[in-house]
Formats: sequence, C-alpha cells, structure tokens
Amino acid sequence: MTYCVGTLTQSGLVFVSDSRTNAGVDHVATFSKMNVFEKEGERVLVLLSAGNLGVTQAVVSYLREDIRHDQRPHLFSVTSLFGAAQVVGQAIRKVWENDGRYLKDFSTDFVASFIFGGQISGGPHGMFMIYNAGNFIEASPDTPFFQIGETKYGKPILDRVINYQSSLLECAKCVLISFDSTIRSNISVGLPLDILIYAKGRLEVGFYRKITHDDEYFRALGQSWSDGLRKVFKEIQNPDWLEKNIVDKNLLGSAL
Amino acid sequence: MTYCVGTLTQSGLVFVSDSRTNAGVDHVATFSKMNVFEKEGERVLVLLSAGNLGVTQAVVSYLREDIRHDQRPHLFSVTSLFGAAQVVGQAIRKVWENDGRYLKDFSTDFVASFIFGGQISGGPHGMFMIYNAGNFIEASPDTPFFQIGETKYGKPILDRVINYQSSLLECAKCVLISFDSTIRSNISVGLPLDILIYAKGRLEVGFYRKITHDDEYFRALGQSWSDGLRKVFKEIQNPDWLEKNIVDKNLLGSAL
Repeated sequence: MTYCVGTLTQSGLVFVSDSRTNAGVDHVATFSKMNVFEKEGERVLVLLSAGNLGVTQAVVSYLREDIRHDQRPHLFSVTSLFGAAQVVGQAIRKVWENDGRYLKDFSTDFVASFIFGGQISGGPHGMFMIYNAGNFIEASPDTPFFQIGETKYGKPILDRVINYQSSLLECAKCVLISFDSTIRSNISVGLPLDILIYAKGRLEVGFYRKITHDDEYFRALGQSWSDGLRKVFKEIQNPDWLEKNIVDKNLLGSAL
Repeated sequence: MTYCVGTLTQSGLVFVSDSRTNAGVDHVATFSKMNVFEKEGERVLVLLSAGNLGVTQAVVSYLREDIRHDQRPHLFSVTSLFGAAQVVGQAIRKVWENDGRYLKDFSTDFVASFIFGGQISGGPHGMFMIYNAGNFIEASPDTPFFQIGETKYGKPILDRVINYQSSLLECAKCVLISFDSTIRSNISVGLPLDILIYAKGRLEVGFYRKITHDDEYFRALGQSWSDGLRKVFKEIQNPDWLEKNIVDKNLLGSAL
C-alpha cells in the first residue's frame, strides 16, 4: 500500500507521500510517489500516486515523454489546471489501453489513483483526485483535503483539524501527524516521506524535504502527539452512567 | 458496515458494538450486533458480529436453537471457552453448508466475522476472533483487543492507549473514543451502541448499556476529545526544518 495526502486551503497546497511499496512481504521497496513538474514563475504541478507501481510509473513516464517530445497537449503546454488534470487522465488511459488486458490475463487489477494539484500562471491554485478511469474530481473549500492509498487510519485527525482557513504550517503539521498514526497502525506505509509546500501565487516550489528515519522533528512529533493524546485521554471525564448506575462499586473489580 | 471492539485485559472484558446495518444506502437499518449468553454464577459469553446480516443472524439462531433443544455441544454445555469458540465456529460452518452455494449463485459473499469472549466457571476469562471459515485466534496480553468491521479509523487510539494492564474503565472510555472517531469519519457506522463490561471472576454481566443519540456523556466525550486533540495539536512544536530552512520567511505566504 501507500499513503498520500494533499490539502487545498486558501493559502496554498501541502503534499505529503510515503515511499513504501510492497507486492507481498517479500517485495517491500522504497519508491518516491511524488513527482513535480515545475517551470519557475510559470507553473508548479505536483502528482502523488497510489496503486500498482507498474501502472503509476508508466503514467509518469508518458507525462514526461510528452513534455520532452513536445507532444501536445502536455503538462507544460496546457493553460489551465483543468487541462493539466485531463492530460494526466489521458496518460492513465494510455496505460490502460496498452497494459490493461495483459494485467487481466495475469489477474492483476489496474489499480491507480492520483492526487494532482498546483497552479498555472493566470489561474487559481487547485487540486484534483484522479481515478484509474482517468476521470477526476476537484477539491473545494468544503473538501479541503484528498487522501489516496491507506487512507482510513489517518482520516480522523484530518477531519478534525483541516479546514479551508488552516495555514500551510497547520496543514503540514496535521498531515504529518496523520502519517504518524498511519505508520504506527499499518506496516505497509513507511518512511521516508516527501513533503512539498506550495504557497499560492508563487509559481515555484516553496518548500520540499525528504523526511527520513533520522528526522528528529518527525520522531519528536510522534512522541509529543502520543503523550498529548494520553494526557487528554486521562483528563476526559469517566462515563457518569458507569459510575452512577453501579450500586455495588466493586462489581467491576478493583481495577475499574 | 459495522464496527465492533472487544478488549481483553487482566481485569476483564469490554465489548462495544454499533447497530448500523446497510445493504446500499436505500437499506440502512438498526440491528444490535451484540448477543449475550449468560447463566449467572456459571458463565457469561458475549458474541459481537460483523458482515452479512443474513449470515450472522443465522449463526446466532443456530446457537440459541441448540441451547433450547439441548443439542450438545452447545454454549451452555461446553466446559471451556475454547470449546465454546468451537461451537460458534461449527454454527458458522452450518450456515455455510446451508446457504453458501446459494449466496454464490447471487454473487453474494459469505462475509462474517465475530468477536467472542467471556468466562466459564473454573476457567480464565478470554476472547477470540472467529472467522467466516469457523476457525479462530485468541487474544493475549500482547494483543489485548480485537476489532471487526470498519476497523481502521478507530485503531490508532486503541494502539496508543490499550494494554493488558489498562483498567476496565480506561478500556471503556478508549473504545468509546474509538467509536466516536469512526462514526465521524464513516457514515456506515452509527448509534445506538451496545456496551457490556465483564469483570473477571464475576460470572455475570457487570454492566450493560445502550448508548443512544440522547446519551449526554457520549456527546460530551466526542466534544471533549475533539477539543483536547485540537489543543494538543496547537501545542505541538512546528517543524524546525520548516522554520529554519526557509531563508525568505515570506516564501510560504503570510498564512504560514
């Protein structure tokens, strides 16, 4: 599996992806799932991918080949984010047309999903979730984040914290906590993480970092979060109906 | 979907189940997924179920019929928890033998999983996870909780808090928070919840309650947890590498 998150807020975009790939426990490997297409001052486009690595890498290769050979429309030729998302969708469909039936012959599902966002000069910043069928949906102030891959463990904290008014720093911190929760609960998601922050209107990558096992901040973050959670947990009142309704307080044993 | 959790700690057992059942959004209904088999002073056995309601209800019906007709071995005749878990496994296999191929004819999966635990006089308290094949695994001090159904959203908090030394009250509170997180993030899990607490050695149900939408404690719990999380989140240090490495602090925009 994989875990990737993108946030869309009024101030910009935050993208974080893990790099664990596995095809059974005998084949666990590290591949970055973040691809950046940047022309400073003109456009920044970021693609996060989850699914069958053979599919997602082929999609990225098509996208890069089309740019190199100037086969239009490509990610450096389109003039809107919507057009760019369509280009990614077309690349997915090209892989499907080339490989789909062979994958079927070997009972391999054509599994692929993408978070794609950025900004092109003259237009607003934006973010899409692109499906294996090549179609997509767009993030909005009501839906300020997308997740792909192993999404469930890390969703509750995002649901509780991220909204369209959140700052880029809040988004970065919250998404990292979401990754920490996921990594603790699921072995198929792992370090290093790629984090990229894009401030709207800048038309260049604002910040990028690879977070490895040596990253002291990420380690401390996990610890502080755990400690904080346990503290909040302790402070939360006990169920009154449990304390009130038990006539014989010893009913539940001394360990209650 | 469904969500059920059982915890096994040194002081006893806590069981919580939701009651949302859906077969597509047009068929959402409320069914309790907790079944209790109790002979006060002799045995308490609790069964939580997830999966196809037609399958899980049939399993429970077989278990109750066998008791009524004293068709041994049944849940009131066996003398060990292991034997009781085998009885449940046999009931699942009976449903499989009766219904399995017809379900297949209608492309319906034989989906069912169970958390089953309690205590029988003369033996220790214990808990099992029973699969649709009728086989099972047992909880241990290293694995002090089982989840079935929509398990991922609520797993991180259980991973962080529950251990074999946790008190029954801690377990109850933690499992309820796990349910709150799940209900917020996934529409297929819903109130009312059934909660049952069993203190080891008592050989009777220590505490049972149905938690409905009117339950003020559960409502307040969700709110306190959210508030607490947001407070911890705010207190957590910002990424130093983000603050340090950006030469132009304005790079990320004022909202950083």
